Amino acid sequence: MTVTLKEVAERAGVSRSAVSRTFTAGASVSAKTRAKVEKAAAELGYAPSALASGLSTGRTKLIGLVSNNFRNPLFLEVFDLFTRAIQDRGLRPLLVNLSDGTGPEDPVRMLRQYSVDAVIVASSTLPAEFALSCQAAGLPVVHAFGRASAQPRVPMVGIDNVEAGRMAARVLQARGYENIGFLGGPASATTTQDRLEGLRQALSGVPGVTLSESFATAYSFDAGEAEMRRLLAAGPLADAYFCGDDVIATGALSALRAAGRDVPGSVGLLGFNDMAAAAWGLIDLTTIRQPLPEIIAASVDLAVQVAERPDQPPEQRILPLELVERGSLRTIG
Amino acid sequence: MTVTLKEVAERAGVSRSAVSRTFTAGASVSAKTRAKVEKAAAELGYAPSALASGLSTGRTKLIGLVSNNFRNPLFLEVFDLFTRAIQDRGLRPLLVNLSDGTGPEDPVRMLRQYSVDAVIVASSTLPAEFALSCQAAGLPVVHAFGRASAQPRVPMVGIDNVEAGRMAARVLQARGYENIGFLGGPASATTTQDRLEGLRQALSGVPGVTLSESFATAYSFDAGEAEMRRLLAAGPLADAYFCGDDVIATGALSALRAAGRDVPGSVGLLGFNDMAAAAWGLIDLTTIRQPLPEIIAASVDLAVQVAERPDQPPEQRILPLELVERGSLRTIG
Repeated sequence: MTVTLKEVAERAGVSRSAVSRTFTAGASVSAKTRAKVEKAAAELGYAPSALASGLSTGRTKLIGLVSNNFRNPLFLEVFDLFTRAIQDRGLRPLLVNLSDGTGPEDPVRMLRQYSVDAVIVASSTLPAEFALSCQAAGLPVVHAFGRASAQPRVPMVGIDNVEAGRMAARVLQARGYENIGFLGGPASATTTQDRLEGLRQALSGVPGVTLSESFATAYSFDAGEAEMRRLLAAGPLADAYFCGDDVIATGALSALRAAGRDVPGSVGLLGFNDMAAAAWGLIDLTTIRQPLPEIIAASVDLAVQVAERPDQPPEQRILPLELVERGSLRTIG
Repeated sequence: MTVTLKEVAERAGVSRSAVSRTFTAGASVSAKTRAKVEKAAAELGYAPSALASGLSTGRTKLIGLVSNNFRNPLFLEVFDLFTRAIQDRGLRPLLVNLSDGTGPEDPVRMLRQYSVDAVIVASSTLPAEFALSCQAAGLPVVHAFGRASAQPRVPMVGIDNVEAGRMAARVLQARGYENIGFLGGPASATTTQDRLEGLRQALSGVPGVTLSESFATAYSFDAGEAEMRRLLAAGPLADAYFCGDDVIATGALSALRAAGRDVPGSVGLLGFNDMAAAAWGLIDLTTIRQPLPEIIAASVDLAVQVAERPDQPPEQRILPLELVERGSLRTIG
């Protein structure tokens, strides 16, 4: 089935080298020859090999897209946006699923074997060591949804989770909540630690305001539901909770409704992320939105830049958060 | 950074050809030489190029994973299972996102350029023509979630949607529902057509049973909610609805609750797919489950088989459905 370069050259009446140059970016070929070759290639259905091109140019146009998050509903949108952003630049995503918790050795070796032009690590829960392992193996890498740092060791695009905690405090205070609860993700997650830090910074020493802290065991519906059930059994609730993310908040909402507690009449809930289901009428969650399209576009741009100039100091792009008002907090006033 | 084959040969004290043969499947090399080469390669961090290997063996271990479905929550689980099943076999998914509705020409040319070993089309809404275009271009292909056919033109793994409609009829009849509604996906989708056909087959001529038919404009929450709002405004509802899928059913549930109608007290809802959120307490949807792990494992097995023996007649594997009982239908009694 496969048409060879030689057959295209014969049909076009040009040299094999002319065909090769036609399909090599930046190579010199006359407009007349190019037109002949492209016509012959189209007629024969010839597709130049990306493998051969990758071997000769050192560019495969493959981007390793690595994630360990195939459970959080937000990530369907993340994968959609990433694959389209990568394709729109003429690149191709080689997807690596790390959800089974394997270490970096095998994935890094594989990504080197396929000579990917760059790696994008898309995860807020993978340790920074994964991106560092890529970098140590000579693979240009960008960490999307990584942890903001004063001295970044790898290029990063994401949000400032400490600022996210401060923003949550402002949102809840503006609505008059005084007994504020943090229903975070796992205490071991840096996202949880950073958001709690921001909440504490903003609320400590504010007269009349208290902060109670609790943690779901995972960023999941079940963990959010279980932790709110525990809080309901343990005694008086806070007036409103800043939840680890929207699935935790939805689990908490489910537990509150099952206990006959109205949201926001009895308890307020503030989510995080703005997953698609947060807009569903029966969930209707007020939430702090991560700007996914912007984070993902910037990650792919930065990956292309790092692939072209791997020796630059690691750049960090922090994007702004946005409140999405729905029905799970009382209104201002 | 990159270690070359020559450096490995020098360190191991063997010829370059011996290193090459060590990393070529099926090539002859003595155990002693292999041990030397593997030791040197491990010490140097040498990774043989998958591109060079792909060019010489004709096998890249790349599987093109093509989908146009990056909106339905079910597909996060689909992508998780597919990427892991592909990786578990030592293969790698090259992900192609067709959600912008482009035709098959560009994706098929790209998949040929990367010499993928096989293509898996994962979609119930892509037309059969996409898989046929792959086949016509000499790419071994499997259509996962395709349409069951008496005379399949491409290898297919999925469910029998006509049987799904018959099963829904049995489930609703067993619970004593008589005025049965179909709240399907888009009327143009073959899944919608087939499930409605099964429902009609099972219910036509049954004394005392009526079937009313309506269609959401998409497999989405918003479309399900909008169609149920229209039905609520139009007049008496059916006793229970077989919904196009779980997101349509969740949209219908939202519209019913907003109108003060209890589910299942006032109206029953039967979903389809068993997406993760169907188990959330505040949705709690009784649904017909597609056996995703089995469909996906069989699709990858079949893709490997088709890559090895492309000239076999197209095989079709139809997997059984299962009812998942939750709280959106009345109990049998």
